[in-house]
Amino acid sequence: MAVYTDVSFEALSALLERYEIGEPMSFKGIAEGVENSNYLLHTTTGNYILTLYEKRVASADLPFFLSLMSHLAARGLPCPVPVSDRQGGWTCTVNGRPAAILSFLEGLSLRRPQPAHCEAAGKALARLHVAGQDFPGKRQNALGPSGWHELVSATRARADSVQDGLAQLIARSHDQLIASWPHNLTCGIIHADLFPDNVLFVDGAVSGLIDFYFACNDALAYDLAVMLNSWCFEADGAFNVTKSKALLKGYRSVRSLDDAEIAAMPLLCAGAALRFTLTRLFDWLNPDPGALVRPKDPREFARALRFHQSVKSAGEYGL
Amino acid sequence: MAVYTDVSFEALSALLERYEIGEPMSFKGIAEGVENSNYLLHTTTGNYILTLYEKRVASADLPFFLSLMSHLAARGLPCPVPVSDRQGGWTCTVNGRPAAILSFLEGLSLRRPQPAHCEAAGKALARLHVAGQDFPGKRQNALGPSGWHELVSATRARADSVQDGLAQLIARSHDQLIASWPHNLTCGIIHADLFPDNVLFVDGAVSGLIDFYFACNDALAYDLAVMLNSWCFEADGAFNVTKSKALLKGYRSVRSLDDAEIAAMPLLCAGAALRFTLTRLFDWLNPDPGALVRPKDPREFARALRFHQSVKSAGEYGL
Repeated sequence: MAVYTDVSFEALSALLERYEIGEPMSFKGIAEGVENSNYLLHTTTGNYILTLYEKRVASADLPFFLSLMSHLAARGLPCPVPVSDRQGGWTCTVNGRPAAILSFLEGLSLRRPQPAHCEAAGKALARLHVAGQDFPGKRQNALGPSGWHELVSATRARADSVQDGLAQLIARSHDQLIASWPHNLTCGIIHADLFPDNVLFVDGAVSGLIDFYFACNDALAYDLAVMLNSWCFEADGAFNVTKSKALLKGYRSVRSLDDAEIAAMPLLCAGAALRFTLTRLFDWLNPDPGALVRPKDPREFARALRFHQSVKSAGEYGL
Repeated sequence: MAVYTDVSFEALSALLERYEIGEPMSFKGIAEGVENSNYLLHTTTGNYILTLYEKRVASADLPFFLSLMSHLAARGLPCPVPVSDRQGGWTCTVNGRPAAILSFLEGLSLRRPQPAHCEAAGKALARLHVAGQDFPGKRQNALGPSGWHELVSATRARADSVQDGLAQLIARSHDQLIASWPHNLTCGIIHADLFPDNVLFVDGAVSGLIDFYFACNDALAYDLAVMLNSWCFEADGAFNVTKSKALLKGYRSVRSLDDAEIAAMPLLCAGAALRFTLTRLFDWLNPDPGALVRPKDPREFARALRFHQSVKSAGEYGL
């Protein structure tokens, strides 16, 4: 959640002259999305989200993200779509930052998703993977294995100030994962950050998939590993296999997993846990004084990482 | 929003069971209101604001604020009204904090109000004063002259770190204002914080008056002094008498000012400028690490204070 950039009524009015979406009726900075400033905009024609892309989203990547959302929505995925301006453009500049107006999706994210929600979300992920198959855009996973080394180096010296032994856990896991990371898995468009925060529900059904700003091309099964990490651990750190089975059941009802994907799941899960440990740790150690979001606790995923390292086979995830 | 309290879907669902306002459809923390955490809640029956009262709003004051908004709305003022729960109560507890659900008002606040907006806002203030005449609640102005001394003491040592000479400006102004403060003016309910942030407009007309959490009983003309300070200075520090004339014209079209109120205006304006200098300076020197809003620059009102001290008569405000 964040509102880093304050947009005045006057700046909004000037912006809306470029669009055909009516007159502004209400405009609120919202605490949503980790990387950007988001505003809920209600106009005489409906509800929209105005997103200002802050430093972490490269403007060169915006066409990829926006065209991906448009592509997926055209295939029935409930994701935000960019609104075109009068010239047909999707991006604009607000307060000197790249920005876009997107459609608004109803629904609420869940703090404690139940197995039925996991199943629905798993199914939505598989639909995303299938719908992404013919998307022509390409973007490397900047937070995949090739991106970890820099974060390991940047956090090593102070990792133990967050938790005793964290530096060693990270260093060892990193070495092991780099040595054994699978490179033969089916690739395609992945969301790469489909946490419960980014799935909206109405009446128990998925009404929205949001925050595509980590989407990229990578192993599809890695996306499942991100979800197993973010949907299936209880607050006390216990892995809930009922939830993981439900999530996998939902996924496999749309797209089947092959033997290589199943066998790689413990490694992929450990890799996802390392990725979120590293980024959270970096943000924890380097808080942005201009950010309106408190850094999240990196220890949650360090604990998950230890769990995945103890896993003997994919069967422990319910596969 | 100053301090952000995260409310989960599950906490929201439990809360809404106590109300008859339908099922939640969307729920977003919004960056609005300086003192509280605010959420925009869309349900199957409409839009609402859920406010969690953080430490600066005493829960003992909540009945005053909520019944005042209800009173004013019943007299046609466009202010939020508290929604009653099934037992008829206006307040609840969310995440351990006192909270209330209020009606949602459309409209946008202006960064750079023009004279016509000043006139409309001045008229709205006078309507508030008139509508408040038969309100039975009482609340002292905690940030009136009797509250300044504590802020002067708390900021004195470090005031000059913000601006050379600020400590002396504050000390002298404080002494002069305490010695000459008028105590014979017509009193009633005042908003006490009717900055442009707190007035919503649709199509140039006032659609909402919000943030009543400084409202109290005090001199009505002091409320005008707050508006002269917050609506009539340009970004370069110049006082815009066209705007002040428009604001006063709007006010006087509903409620006339007597000779004592007119004569007192330079003092009241200096007092209002001192009040906002002091509270901003205090927040600047004591930033809340949990706050999601950057402290506002106290020097803006120190400059206004110097202006008001140079004013020879109320005629300079267009009175």
